[in-house]
Amino acid sequence: MKILFLNGPNLNLLGTREPDIYGKKTLKDIENDMKNIAPKLDALPTFIQTNDEAAMIDAIHNARGVFHGIVINPGAFTHTSIAIMDAIAGVDIPTVEVHLSNIHAREEFRRTSYPAKVCIGQISGFGVFSYELGLRALINYINQHNQ
Amino acid sequence: MKILFLNGPNLNLLGTREPDIYGKKTLKDIENDMKNIAPKLDALPTFIQTNDEAAMIDAIHNARGVFHGIVINPGAFTHTSIAIMDAIAGVDIPTVEVHLSNIHAREEFRRTSYPAKVCIGQISGFGVFSYELGLRALINYINQHNQ
Amino acid sequence: MKILFLNGPNLNLLGTREPDIYGKKTLKDIENDMKNIAPKLDALPTFIQTNDEAAMIDAIHNARGVFHGIVINPGAFTHTSIAIMDAIAGVDIPTVEVHLSNIHAREEFRRTSYPAKVCIGQISGFGVFSYELGLRALINYINQHNQ
Amino acid sequence: MKILFLNGPNLNLLGTREPDIYGKKTLKDIENDMKNIAPKLDALPTFIQTNDEAAMIDAIHNARGVFHGIVINPGAFTHTSIAIMDAIAGVDIPTVEVHLSNIHAREEFRRTSYPAKVCIGQISGFGVFSYELGLRALINYINQHNQ
Amino acid sequence: MKILFLNGPNLNLLGTREPDIYGKKTLKDIENDMKNIAPKLDALPTFIQTNDEAAMIDAIHNARGVFHGIVINPGAFTHTSIAIMDAIAGVDIPTVEVHLSNIHAREEFRRTSYPAKVCIGQISGFGVFSYELGLRALINYINQHNQ
Amino acid sequence: MKILFLNGPNLNLLGTREPDIYGKKTLKDIENDMKNIAPKLDALPTFIQTNDEAAMIDAIHNARGVFHGIVINPGAFTHTSIAIMDAIAGVDIPTVEVHLSNIHAREEFRRTSYPAKVCIGQISGFGVFSYELGLRALINYINQHNQ
Amino acid sequence: MKILFLNGPNLNLLGTREPDIYGKKTLKDIENDMKNIAPKLDALPTFIQTNDEAAMIDAIHNARGVFHGIVINPGAFTHTSIAIMDAIAGVDIPTVEVHLSNIHAREEFRRTSYPAKVCIGQISGFGVFSYELGLRALINYINQHNQ
Amino acid sequence: MKILFLNGPNLNLLGTREPDIYGKKTLKDIENDMKNIAPKLDALPTFIQTNDEAAMIDAIHNARGVFHGIVINPGAFTHTSIAIMDAIAGVDIPTVEVHLSNIHAREEFRRTSYPAKVCIGQISGFGVFSYELGLRALINYINQHNQ
Amino acid sequence: MKILFLNGPNLNLLGTREPDIYGKKTLKDIENDMKNIAPKLDALPTFIQTNDEAAMIDAIHNARGVFHGIVINPGAFTHTSIAIMDAIAGVDIPTVEVHLSNIHAREEFRRTSYPAKVCIGQISGFGVFSYELGLRALINYINQHNQ
Amino acid sequence: MKILFLNGPNLNLLGTREPDIYGKKTLKDIENDMKNIAPKLDALPTFIQTNDEAAMIDAIHNARGVFHGIVINPGAFTHTSIAIMDAIAGVDIPTVEVHLSNIHAREEFRRTSYPAKVCIGQISGFGVFSYELGLRALINYINQHNQ
Amino acid sequence: MKILFLNGPNLNLLGTREPDIYGKKTLKDIENDMKNIAPKLDALPTFIQTNDEAAMIDAIHNARGVFHGIVINPGAFTHTSIAIMDAIAGVDIPTVEVHLSNIHAREEFRRTSYPAKVCIGQISGFGVFSYELGLRALINYINQHNQ
Amino acid sequence: MKILFLNGPNLNLLGTREPDIYGKKTLKDIENDMKNIAPKLDALPTFIQTNDEAAMIDAIHNARGVFHGIVINPGAFTHTSIAIMDAIAGVDIPTVEVHLSNIHAREEFRRTSYPAKVCIGQISGFGVFSYELGLRALINYINQHNQ
Repeated sequence: MKILFLNGPNLNLLGTREPDIYGKKTLKDIENDMKNIAPKLDALPTFIQTNDEAAMIDAIHNARGVFHGIVINPGAFTHTSIAIMDAIAGVDIPTVEVHLSNIHAREEFRRTSYPAKVCIGQISGFGVFSYELGLRALINYINQHNQ
Repeated sequence: MKILFLNGPNLNLLGTREPDIYGKKTLKDIENDMKNIAPKLDALPTFIQTNDEAAMIDAIHNARGVFHGIVINPGAFTHTSIAIMDAIAGVDIPTVEVHLSNIHAREEFRRTSYPAKVCIGQISGFGVFSYELGLRALINYINQHNQ
Repeated sequence: MKILFLNGPNLNLLGTREPDIYGKKTLKDIENDMKNIAPKLDALPTFIQTNDEAAMIDAIHNARGVFHGIVINPGAFTHTSIAIMDAIAGVDIPTVEVHLSNIHAREEFRRTSYPAKVCIGQISGFGVFSYELGLRALINYINQHNQ
Repeated sequence: MKILFLNGPNLNLLGTREPDIYGKKTLKDIENDMKNIAPKLDALPTFIQTNDEAAMIDAIHNARGVFHGIVINPGAFTHTSIAIMDAIAGVDIPTVEVHLSNIHAREEFRRTSYPAKVCIGQISGFGVFSYELGLRALINYINQHNQ
Repeated sequence: MKILFLNGPNLNLLGTREPDIYGKKTLKDIENDMKNIAPKLDALPTFIQTNDEAAMIDAIHNARGVFHGIVINPGAFTHTSIAIMDAIAGVDIPTVEVHLSNIHAREEFRRTSYPAKVCIGQISGFGVFSYELGLRALINYINQHNQ
Repeated sequence: MKILFLNGPNLNLLGTREPDIYGKKTLKDIENDMKNIAPKLDALPTFIQTNDEAAMIDAIHNARGVFHGIVINPGAFTHTSIAIMDAIAGVDIPTVEVHLSNIHAREEFRRTSYPAKVCIGQISGFGVFSYELGLRALINYINQHNQ
Repeated sequence: MKILFLNGPNLNLLGTREPDIYGKKTLKDIENDMKNIAPKLDALPTFIQTNDEAAMIDAIHNARGVFHGIVINPGAFTHTSIAIMDAIAGVDIPTVEVHLSNIHAREEFRRTSYPAKVCIGQISGFGVFSYELGLRALINYINQHNQ
Repeated sequence: MKILFLNGPNLNLLGTREPDIYGKKTLKDIENDMKNIAPKLDALPTFIQTNDEAAMIDAIHNARGVFHGIVINPGAFTHTSIAIMDAIAGVDIPTVEVHLSNIHAREEFRRTSYPAKVCIGQISGFGVFSYELGLRALINYINQHNQ
Repeated sequence: MKILFLNGPNLNLLGTREPDIYGKKTLKDIENDMKNIAPKLDALPTFIQTNDEAAMIDAIHNARGVFHGIVINPGAFTHTSIAIMDAIAGVDIPTVEVHLSNIHAREEFRRTSYPAKVCIGQISGFGVFSYELGLRALINYINQHNQ
Repeated sequence: MKILFLNGPNLNLLGTREPDIYGKKTLKDIENDMKNIAPKLDALPTFIQTNDEAAMIDAIHNARGVFHGIVINPGAFTHTSIAIMDAIAGVDIPTVEVHLSNIHAREEFRRTSYPAKVCIGQISGFGVFSYELGLRALINYINQHNQ
Repeated sequence: MKILFLNGPNLNLLGTREPDIYGKKTLKDIENDMKNIAPKLDALPTFIQTNDEAAMIDAIHNARGVFHGIVINPGAFTHTSIAIMDAIAGVDIPTVEVHLSNIHAREEFRRTSYPAKVCIGQISGFGVFSYELGLRALINYINQHNQ
Repeated sequence: MKILFLNGPNLNLLGTREPDIYGKKTLKDIENDMKNIAPKLDALPTFIQTNDEAAMIDAIHNARGVFHGIVINPGAFTHTSIAIMDAIAGVDIPTVEVHLSNIHAREEFRRTSYPAKVCIGQISGFGVFSYELGLRALINYINQHNQ
């Protein structure tokens, strides 16, 4: 199963900045974690990070016919991008939304998620481990729906 | 009269996805429709589709001195982009906003339009025919104001 | 195809009052425009204008079995009449909502439309030309659904 | 005891339209039901249906000195008419508000009732049986207050 | 100077009902008061009372070329009728809004006035004397603008 | 037909407290009223009163396979308990919500009902007679759906 | 009858500033108008203008036992001062609120009035003539309540 | 590591009711799943289900000194119980909130979570698999903080 | 005078948890404080603490005929329980609401109190001393109303 | 310990006006009460009453180095004065807010308190006894923090 | 050019209190800074600080014909005083609003500014340097508009 | 000191469009102004303008280790981009937000700024001079924090 890990704006800064909120691991570390775990789950991960909403939409479009599922961390676009939500709804690939921080414990404007409305579900608050949880949730979902 | 048809995010998916909401015609079909109709209205159409807000703003800026009018479907940016509204206001080219679906009959957050505030008017709900209506509305407006 | 043009409150004042917002054409002019255009679209227009919400509801009810479609400009009732919305939903005749002015560019309380929730779509901002666009939209819809 | 059954906009469409929401019985059927039941409760029913808010207000005014109570289904005016509320408060005749559908299970804008603020109570959701319940509630109230 | 006194819904009940809020004088009494006072102000009063929003709109339309000013008490339509507001704006006759009760001291939903937005001003809370004040305000305004 | 009458918090105080709002009859009186009426409607009533939200939820759960319908007065939980709403939705037993007082004529926070969203309908404002109306509404509903 | 005319902040600027909103007459002119009119109404006017909320409160307190009524124009304090409202309620002297401009036709934050909640009524929009109307309203009220 | 699985109202109905929303597995199935998975994660699970808010609070209090972590599904109390939030904050045991359904894709009132404000994080939308994810998230958190 | 001290959810945790917000004294300490002070005020205290809303309601009901007054700290139920408010209103025993922390200086959702609407008054922010203040306030009230 | 009692607008009217809300005691009575009680608490009271927000701010500023604590009743400024809140925060003298009436049981706009956000706590609803409670709360706080 | 520096409530406390928010410089230091800088910009500064809204309004009124511009820091009145806004609008002297702290990074209620609506612009967040920036902005504006 | 001037969407249109709002100077003029002023402040300016949110985020990221400060005019992204706010917070370079127009005097939706929450401060309303003020504010801040 080919899985796309799609990371949005500012996630390239991970590890070097605001470690009290987002932890000390870098995006590279997360990718390495995923590369270790994925084979055990029969998954083959691909990684894209971009600060560009359009690039995220394009990546979602291009995922059709290529990937079996998407683990998305839309970063700050979570709260503002109806276009990313529409892209996910448009391609109809199973998608899980993950967040490093617990969005229920932060500013009011971080409680809303447009993409989550059309995702399978949302995982937030477990730092880099949210990605592993997201991957497991996605694989489990795909397995159940392929039977 | 040179007319720019400017389509925003996810409209490249038209026809292949969610046909119950957006119909079965592709963006290519719409472009062909417009190419057939435009000559009868003394109009010469150009087509741009992009998932990129910045590309839409640039296209609007570049339209100055090139196009006599714009038919815009800002897609999901309709509801979130003050920057596209400002671009239209800034270039002062007659612009008509069109939507495939009836935004009054969908989710609450799809009722608001920033660009429509500075357009001549808005047409929503008639599927691909919204584009023909938009073109007619635009040509009629230009003709009236050129007399 | 028999088409009802149903105009709501204050539209009888058209042309003589507030021409900067609503244009200089009278309702009679609009009716004449429609009479000229309708035959080209195989449509036979009938015109009703009333300042009475009840008369509008009755006209919608009476349209059953008589008209193939309705072009409605509910005027100020657009923003307040759930009863007109219910009437349109109740008779299930294809209906298009039109407005002379661009409701997105006016007062906040003019942004909401109850009837539009149950219409095919809405056209606003093109002055008297909104009626021609509305007629074309309606005929196109009926033709597509009669095939 | 003379009882006025006052039905508001679109209730004349009952039975022939949207039976999934409003049931298959016609307003005539409801009237016949009431004529059968009323004598057992020592009640003499009169029926008025109108799509006209003013006619409803007039009917309420004219009920003074004629009717001992009113069963009102204000239809869509329930949510918008302060004037009908004022009319009921003005004539001070015991009034019961009834609805065919359960207004708590529909759109947000159908949850509010102006007239109910000055009625004895409200009954909603039981289809045509709401009228019988309304009649029983009214008769019971009148009997209790005449002792 | 010919002045139209236009009274809206439920004002026909004046004097006989809810005298603690609206006072004991009847609408007839108000009319007689006005007939006495008007000549001293060189005014000739005409009186219309209706429970019908459409009739109010029609009366406003018909006032063009006939009346020099309008004293309007829109009753409960004050808070809900954009159509009456549009009618006043459409005919452009000097209009004063009056209320018997003090709308600032009642329910929240009675604080808003659509018609007042396009009237010269508003007078509320002085019982039947509000009409005399309204007439004086109107005559004063007309005199000043005719000089 | 076995019917559960489920009464929520503070209804045990009925009759002895705040009789101006809730009437003078006790809960015992209501139960006796129901015992008299039920046989005429082929109904066998059971009564539970509790101040405990959990006990109400348990009672609803336990009603499965035992009762044909529920008449519920959730008291103050009406406005706050999503859990009771979920319980009713979960067991799928026909349920009617009743209130002694008219919730539309009281404080703003008493206008909302969570349970009513999943009930057949709601009856409010008729004092203890609301229970008889609720029983009749329920029996009528069950009879119609058993045919 | 001794009447206090109490004018709030910025009203000392009248006539020399923003005449398009507030007219060309000065506060002195208003006082002279009142001095001319008052005797005809058996009233003896006193004038206080202050930009100080505390001075307005003190003036209201001091009016007890001295003045029979107050005509107040609280200026911008209308929309923000609960303390002035409480002062009027505390001294229980008949008070009329007047405004030069029509507060319903200005910014949203000028629609609210705290003092008007405890005044007899409110008059707004008639320029300096609002004062004469306010005086007449007040005298009429006092006369009626002294009978 | 001893882990408490604490399930709130209506979760005892799992599997037999509304399987389209909550899936076909019973709470017993979930417990068995957890019993199978827990040992692999060096965890010893205990299960409590209750419809009683107080029992949930007590269970959280009693968990002190007994359990190393809590996986909580507060059911409908998620959206209403500040008391459960305070209990979790009070005992300071690492807690993960899980939901079977995706709360971002349901009614507006299901978007808010009080307990999640003081939990490590929240997982929603993955059916019974949410529990396994929650357990993994919790164990991972405890391991990281015990190093 | 017999006084009931009724403490709500999580107050059993006092002293051992979150001492920076709630202080270091335990509920037992508070009870001992009250036992020392009560005799000086001719009061005989009884203490109930429960995490159960129903138990709080029952305790209030049972207080009738037994206690002369109630000092209540409803904990988190302060902000959510209309049922406790109704219970206090129902039994009509003088009640004072106390809080350890200053609810005006905490989260927005802690500013609202349902029970305080029907209490004599509210005391918040003085730690365990709030109880002594509450007791004094209650005794003073009872003494004044017994004279 | 020197304590400042600072009373805001309209409190000079105490006793003579609206005794049903504020009681019959005058501000003088309160001062005498405080003079009697203060010595028992080793406190020396000073009294200031003013209707002037600026005078209240000045009094708070001047309290630095003079008073050990402040008991403040900001009257209507409670709900509107951020400046008084800032003054209290600026001088950092322990301050207790008191109210005669129960602000939770009055109009919505009386529920908010700016100053209470920076006070130790708030006491409301106990009439003149609120002052004694406030004094006790303040002295207790100072004693605890001086140890 | 004569420039008035007008400082509102609590700014007299500068430097001695809450230096973490407002810095360590006193108002005297700011005045000295301004005296040094002003001559280089051909400006002659005058300084007024008051805690009194009325005194601020008076100072603005008195500035007419005396000062060429005003640098105003309305302190907490920024968020509450429509009267100061009206004063600035009334005298029509170029005015710049300055704040020591960044109002966008503080409490919600500090985000709104009434006076800024009628000022040239607003500068916030630069500590005492905000005054120098304000002076430069004002001088630049006057110079540009005097050419 | 190297300073980045980062300009957002539509600012490339400066000078040629809407000069009544934004002035007649072009972005080139602003850059030249800055080049003249910067040396006097020991600053070396670099200029980036883009209509692309992603390009703005990238520019902020790339500024780390290169620039000592940023003067940002986010244009319409000010009101919608949480991602730009997060970027500024992430790189922790001193940043000043500037606006040509006074955002407090424009549409409601232009009052909010996400980036300003994490900037030193905000300057708005002084046309192109806002940039010089922004530069001065930034240099002053850096100098103070480097001492």
